[in-house]
Amino acid sequence: MNALDHSHHVSDFARRYAVSPLKGLQKYYGRDLISFAGGLPSPEYFPFTSISADILPADAFPLNAPRASSSSSSSFPLSWLWRLFGSGKDSTTHVGVPRSPRQGDGGLNLATALQYGPATGLARIQAFTREFTERIYAPVYNDWTTLVHTGNTDGWSRIARLLLNPGDTLLVEEWAYPSAISNTRPLEVRMKSIPMDGQGIRTDVLRAILSGWNAEKDGPRPRVLYTVPVGQNPVGVTMGLERKKAIYAICVEYDIIIAEDDPYFFLQVGEFVPKSQRKLESAGGDNDNDVAHFISSLVPSFLKVDTEGRVIRIDTFSKTIAPGVRLGWFTCSPLFAERLERIGETSTQSPCGLGQALVMALLEQWTFDGYIRWLRGLRTQYKLRRDYFVDCLADEFDLIPSPTTGDHDDKRAVLYAYARGTISSGSISRARALVGEKSQGRDGGRSGGSGRPLLSFIPPTSGMFVWVTVYFGDIPDKTDEEDGTVLTPERQFWARLADSGLLTAPGWFFSPEELLATSSSSSDRRIGHLRLSYTPSDMETIRRGVKIFAQTLEEFSRV
Amino acid sequence: MNALDHSHHVSDFARRYAVSPLKGLQKYYGRDLISFAGGLPSPEYFPFTSISADILPADAFPLNAPRASSSSSSSFPLSWLWRLFGSGKDSTTHVGVPRSPRQGDGGLNLATALQYGPATGLARIQAFTREFTERIYAPVYNDWTTLVHTGNTDGWSRIARLLLNPGDTLLVEEWAYPSAISNTRPLEVRMKSIPMDGQGIRTDVLRAILSGWNAEKDGPRPRVLYTVPVGQNPVGVTMGLERKKAIYAICVEYDIIIAEDDPYFFLQVGEFVPKSQRKLESAGGDNDNDVAHFISSLVPSFLKVDTEGRVIRIDTFSKTIAPGVRLGWFTCSPLFAERLERIGETSTQSPCGLGQALVMALLEQWTFDGYIRWLRGLRTQYKLRRDYFVDCLADEFDLIPSPTTGDHDDKRAVLYAYARGTISSGSISRARALVGEKSQGRDGGRSGGSGRPLLSFIPPTSGMFVWVTVYFGDIPDKTDEEDGTVLTPERQFWARLADSGLLTAPGWFFSPEELLATSSSSSDRRIGHLRLSYTPSDMETIRRGVKIFAQTLEEFSRV
Repeated sequence: MNALDHSHHVSDFARRYAVSPLKGLQKYYGRDLISFAGGLPSPEYFPFTSISADILPADAFPLNAPRASSSSSSSFPLSWLWRLFGSGKDSTTHVGVPRSPRQGDGGLNLATALQYGPATGLARIQAFTREFTERIYAPVYNDWTTLVHTGNTDGWSRIARLLLNPGDTLLVEEWAYPSAISNTRPLEVRMKSIPMDGQGIRTDVLRAILSGWNAEKDGPRPRVLYTVPVGQNPVGVTMGLERKKAIYAICVEYDIIIAEDDPYFFLQVGEFVPKSQRKLESAGGDNDNDVAHFISSLVPSFLKVDTEGRVIRIDTFSKTIAPGVRLGWFTCSPLFAERLERIGETSTQSPCGLGQALVMALLEQWTFDGYIRWLRGLRTQYKLRRDYFVDCLADEFDLIPSPTTGDHDDKRAVLYAYARGTISSGSISRARALVGEKSQGRDGGRSGGSGRPLLSFIPPTSGMFVWVTVYFGDIPDKTDEEDGTVLTPERQFWARLADSGLLTAPGWFFSPEELLATSSSSSDRRIGHLRLSYTPSDMETIRRGVKIFAQTLEEFSRV
Repeated sequence: MNALDHSHHVSDFARRYAVSPLKGLQKYYGRDLISFAGGLPSPEYFPFTSISADILPADAFPLNAPRASSSSSSSFPLSWLWRLFGSGKDSTTHVGVPRSPRQGDGGLNLATALQYGPATGLARIQAFTREFTERIYAPVYNDWTTLVHTGNTDGWSRIARLLLNPGDTLLVEEWAYPSAISNTRPLEVRMKSIPMDGQGIRTDVLRAILSGWNAEKDGPRPRVLYTVPVGQNPVGVTMGLERKKAIYAICVEYDIIIAEDDPYFFLQVGEFVPKSQRKLESAGGDNDNDVAHFISSLVPSFLKVDTEGRVIRIDTFSKTIAPGVRLGWFTCSPLFAERLERIGETSTQSPCGLGQALVMALLEQWTFDGYIRWLRGLRTQYKLRRDYFVDCLADEFDLIPSPTTGDHDDKRAVLYAYARGTISSGSISRARALVGEKSQGRDGGRSGGSGRPLLSFIPPTSGMFVWVTVYFGDIPDKTDEEDGTVLTPERQFWARLADSGLLTAPGWFFSPEELLATSSSSSDRRIGHLRLSYTPSDMETIRRGVKIFAQTLEEFSRV
C-alpha cells in the first residue's frame, strides 16, 4: 500500500512555499534544446579539471577484537587501529572524478557536480540512497522516496519547518540533542519531554501524556515526535523493535508523525559484557560476510513498522564516512518529500557537489557490499571503544548492577558505581533494594557515608556516549561571580572537571526545559548528569580521562 | 567608527534563537584538555586519507579579446576558450589536502575539514574572506565581520529570517530572482517592487513609496531592501556609485537595512560598444596588472558607502569558481553576524569541508594576486560573450537606440529591435518619439505594421543576462487545455520558442507579483519579457539560438 494522506500535517509555513518555479520546464527535460534559460556559468570556467582522493579499503578495519595477548600489553598504543589492531589494511586506493560527462555516469563528473544542481542531488546519489534504504531499512509501504539533505541538523531543521505551527507542542525525549531543540525554539513551539528507560521513550508515559492532554490549557495535542532511537544522544539507549512497534501504535492512534533522527544506526554494538565474562578471542566477533546477516543483527528502523507513511527518517554519512561531507538523506512519503525539497531549494539548494562527487566515487569504488563491510569494521571499532571505556570505569569504581524499571520490555541493568572499597555486601543489598522501585535517572541522591553510590549508568548498546547520573548529595548551589547565574552542583562539578583537565558535556546542555529556560529550579539539585563520549583517539587518553573523572568526583563528593 | 546598533531590526524569529550552547566551553578553548565532550567521530575513521585536484592556472584565460583575424573566421569553433583564444594556458597544477594537521595550516587538513566544524568555517577560509573583503570592498566602518554560508540563496534565506517579521513588507526590484521571493513567501511577508531604469532601482520612486507609506492600510513601513545591484538578475542592469549613494541616503533616512546580493560583481564588463566602433585589437583590454587598477575599474559595493553598518552583503564563489562548491560569505555588523551564525549552526552547520578545503587549496596555490588575475580573465570571457550575443541580435534585427528615462543619472540607451528592412527613417523618428516619454519595460505595445519594434533591451554592463521586452501587439490570451490556466502572449511565445528548440526564462518567473499570485491580470498583455543568458558553452550555439529566437518572434508577431 501507499502512504496515507498526511497533508493535514503540513505546517502553514510549509504550505506557503510555491510549487517549483521550474515546473513549466519539465516537459522539455531531456530534449536536445539550446538553452538561454539558466543562469549557469559555463563549466569551462570551473578551475577544477579533476578531483580525486586516496581512500582506505572497505576492509580497513578488522571484524574481530584483538587477541588477549595484545590487549594485555601494559603500554597503551597511541592509536586504536593502526598499531594495536594491525590486521587492518592500510593500503589506499586512488579514486577520481573527471571533468567531462560520460554516458550513464549519473552526474559523477565535474561539469555536472560543480554546476548548480537540483535539491534532489546528483542522480547517482539519488540512486544510491534509494537502493541503500531499500536493502537496509526495507520500508513497508510502497511509494516512499529519498531526498538528500546537508546532514541531519539540516534534515531536522527542514522537518520542523515542514510540520510545526506556532503554539504546537513537540514531543521530545527527556534528554535531547541541543541543536534539535535550538532549531525548534524560534518556531514558537513548546516541548513536552518524555521520560526514558533502558530502551528509550516510555510508552506508558507517552500514552498517559496523550490521553490526558488538556488542549484548553496546553494548546493542540502534539502531532510530532522527535526521537533518536538508536544510541540516543545523549543518553545512549536504543529502542528495540517491540518498543518501536508500541510507540508506532500510539502514534497511529493519536495521529502523530515520527521524525526518526538516526545517525548512530550502524554503531549498534550489542550488550555490554563485563571483561571477566568476555570471550577475548572474538569480542567484536562478526565473521559472517552475508549482508542479510548484518542487517538482521541491527534493530530495525521505524520504517520497518511504518505502514502508513508517518515516519520521516533522516540518515547521514556523518558517522559512517565523515561529518565534513555534510550529506545525508530523508526517507518519507512523496507528499512530505515534495515540501522538503521546496524548503531545501530555497535555502541550501543542493549539497556541495565536491562532497557529493567524492562520497559517490568512494562508494562506487567500494561497491555496496564493500560499504557494508566498512560499516561492520566501524562497528567493531565502536564496540571496542565502548567496552574499553566501561572497563576503565569498572577499574575506578565498584559497579553494582540493578534492573531498570521502565516499560515491561525493558530488562536492562543500571550499573551503580561506588568508590572502591566503600561498600560492604550489606550496603550492596541495601543499595539494590533502594533503587529497585525507581527508574534510572530519577533516583534521589542517597544519604552520605557508606553505601552511597557516586553515579549510575546504563552501558550503551549503540552510539558514542555513556550518560552518567551523578549523585552529589547535599552540596549547596553557588553563584557565578561574573554573571550572577546560579551554579548548581552539576555546573560546579562540570567546571571542576574542566579545571582538572577533562571536558565533558553537562546535563543541562541536553535538557529541553533548561535550554528553553522554562524551568531550572524544579529539578533535584542533588542529581546531575554528564555525557561522556568514548570517541577520543586513543586508549591511553580514555584511561587518563576516566581517572581524572573518578578522582575529581570522589573529591567533589567528599565536601 | 563602528556599526550603529541595529538590534531593533532583528526579527522576533531570530531573537528566539538561544545564545550558543557552547558558550560555557569557550573559556577552555585552546587549553590542552582531554575531551569526552564532543560527539565527534575519530578522524582515524574517515576513509579519505587525502584529497586533491587538478586546477587551471590563474592566468588560464587571456586578458584580451581575440584579434580581428581570428574573430572574422567563418567557421565558429565549439569552444570559446581553448580553440579560439589559444593564448590561454591549459597546463594544470595539482593541489592536495593532507590528512594530518600541521602547525599553522588554518584547518586545511582532512582531520579538521572532515570533522564537525563551527558555522564560521575553516580558520583559513575565515581569514581569506576577511582579507578579500578588506582589499576589494574596503568597508568604511570598523567592526564589520565576515561569516561563511553555503551560497547566496542560503545567505539570503538567513537574512530574511534575521530581519523580517510576518506582515512586514520587503522592498524588491521590479523583477527579481525567483528563489529570493519563494524564500520569503512562507514568512508571510508582503512585497513592494520598485521600478528600475538603466541603473536599477529608481530613487524617485523609492522615495515616493516610503514618504507616502500608509501604515494603516499596508502595515509597517518597509525596513528591508533586497537588491542585486550588479548585473541584476534578471534585468542585467548595474547601479553606479552615485545611484548607490542616493539609495543609501534614503535607507538612512527611513532606517532600512540593505541586503546586497552580489554574485555578478566580478562580471562587470563595461558599456556595450557596437561592433563597428569596437577596437578589435583589445576588445577586452585589461593589461594593467595592478590590483588597485582592477578594483578601481569595478563599481564599488554598498559596503563602500555604508557608514552605519546597515548593509548585509552576500558574496559567493558560485560565479567565480563554481556553483557546486556551495560556499560564500556575509559581510555585516557583528550584531547581525552573531544571529546569522546561530541560524546557520542549527540548519546547514558548517559548509561542506571537502568544498571548503579544495577551494582554499586552490586559492592558496593561486595566491591572492593570482585569484585577481583569474577574475580578470573571467571578466574578459564574459565581455566577449556579452558582445557576441548582442552582435548576434544586431545581425538579426535593426537596432535603434533611444535614451532611457529614469533617474537623472541614468544616461543609458535602450535598443529597439525591428524586423530587418521593416523600418524607414520616418518610422525611426516616430518610434523614438513614441518611446521618449516612457521608461523601459513599461512601454505599451506599439500598433502593428511598419515601424513597430519587436523588442527592446538595454545591453548589460555586467552579469550573464540580456533582458528583452517583447512587444506582441494584440495577440489574444489562450487557455491551457490541460490545467485551464490562462496563457498570456508571453507564455505562448515562451512555449513556442521551446517547441522551436530554444529554452528561455520567461518574465513571469521573475515577477514578484505573479510569483506571489497577488496579481496576474493587471499587467499589459501586449508586452512580455524574457531573460536570455549568454553563458552557453559556445559561439555557434549562441548564433543558432539567436536565429531561432528572431525567426520565431517574427512568425509569432505576424499573426
